[in-house]
Amino acid sequence: MGTAEATEETPGGDPNEASAWGEVAPEAARRLLVAAVEAFAERGYHATTTRDIAGRAGMSPAALYIHYKTKEELLHRISRIGHDKALRILESAADGAGTAADRLTDAVVTFVRWHAAHHTTARVVQYELDALGDEHRAEIVELRRRSDAAIRRIINDGVEAHEFDVPDIPGTTLAVLSLCIDVARWFNVEGRRTPDEVGALYADLVLRMVAAGA
Amino acid sequence: MGTAEATEETPGGDPNEASAWGEVAPEAARRLLVAAVEAFAERGYHATTTRDIAGRAGMSPAALYIHYKTKEELLHRISRIGHDKALRILESAADGAGTAADRLTDAVVTFVRWHAAHHTTARVVQYELDALGDEHRAEIVELRRRSDAAIRRIINDGVEAHEFDVPDIPGTTLAVLSLCIDVARWFNVEGRRTPDEVGALYADLVLRMVAAGA
Repeated sequence: MGTAEATEETPGGDPNEASAWGEVAPEAARRLLVAAVEAFAERGYHATTTRDIAGRAGMSPAALYIHYKTKEELLHRISRIGHDKALRILESAADGAGTAADRLTDAVVTFVRWHAAHHTTARVVQYELDALGDEHRAEIVELRRRSDAAIRRIINDGVEAHEFDVPDIPGTTLAVLSLCIDVARWFNVEGRRTPDEVGALYADLVLRMVAAGA
Repeated sequence: MGTAEATEETPGGDPNEASAWGEVAPEAARRLLVAAVEAFAERGYHATTTRDIAGRAGMSPAALYIHYKTKEELLHRISRIGHDKALRILESAADGAGTAADRLTDAVVTFVRWHAAHHTTARVVQYELDALGDEHRAEIVELRRRSDAAIRRIINDGVEAHEFDVPDIPGTTLAVLSLCIDVARWFNVEGRRTPDEVGALYADLVLRMVAAGA
């Protein structure tokens, strides 16, 4: 998934991806999460062993078990941090000042930027949900429900203020989130657009979807 | 990925997914492709062995090798058939009669319907590109370039005919394809919308993105 070059240049992984884990301590636990994200993204969750992850982090399997009891616990931590971040971004935009169009722009720009800048992490977070245990999966589904509610709230506000014209609010909410999330699949750091440029393009397209100003 | 129930009911897999492979003969080769799609979707390409695939198809590993020399050859066949189908859908819409809005609607409705009805296959086709060998990957990238060109042609025609108002044609093309492709990630056969309903919703949203009739 294109992380090999970054890993060679920067021990401990792509600095952009690693920056997502600043809150994880101690440093060894953080290093293991970064290694797990890279391994899951390159080979898939099921093809990755805890031994692979420990090796990438330059640690022994025994040292890994001090921090994480199972491979699923690593995936859950990654998924939880990623989904918490997504929810903070979207709720902060929904709670912001300005018109519904301003808040929707803010939500799309920051959500797209996150999925572009952290595309390796985002792919793991978005594609490996089925590998979570039932309890962890239910917890993540609830965070996703709240992310959906944040966007729906902005669109609702826009419709009530006669700023937007949206016949199907749940369907449009789904499409807005889906459009932003899929950035993680196609975004290429060597591509022609920066994360901010994709954010600006997508904010314009989403305002058209809700017929803002029409 | 939710194929377990379908497999129990229907030996040989979900009939919706299996219908994508009608052109593959003999029947044993087709059965192996369907088994490979299910295994790749459930466990990922790297965690799946040719032995797993043969077992799912009720065949011996030796019988598999009569039809496919390597696991990568199976993935390539799946990806090739999926991308050929996508290209046929999009070029047929681009070559169709009617206004640019009619042709764009046709493209979105049929492309979304394929990604919803064949979501298991589509996930493998869309997410396992990096596992292809260099030559096969280049072949698939070329098919994707042509799919992109089909949508871009419709949008260009609409702009030239003053039907659409699109400041960034390549970016809008990318977003339209991305929106349709991501249906494979979230679509749930037990969800509230049928493939046709998602197609109709998305066609409306895409016409808004190009400001058709504005």
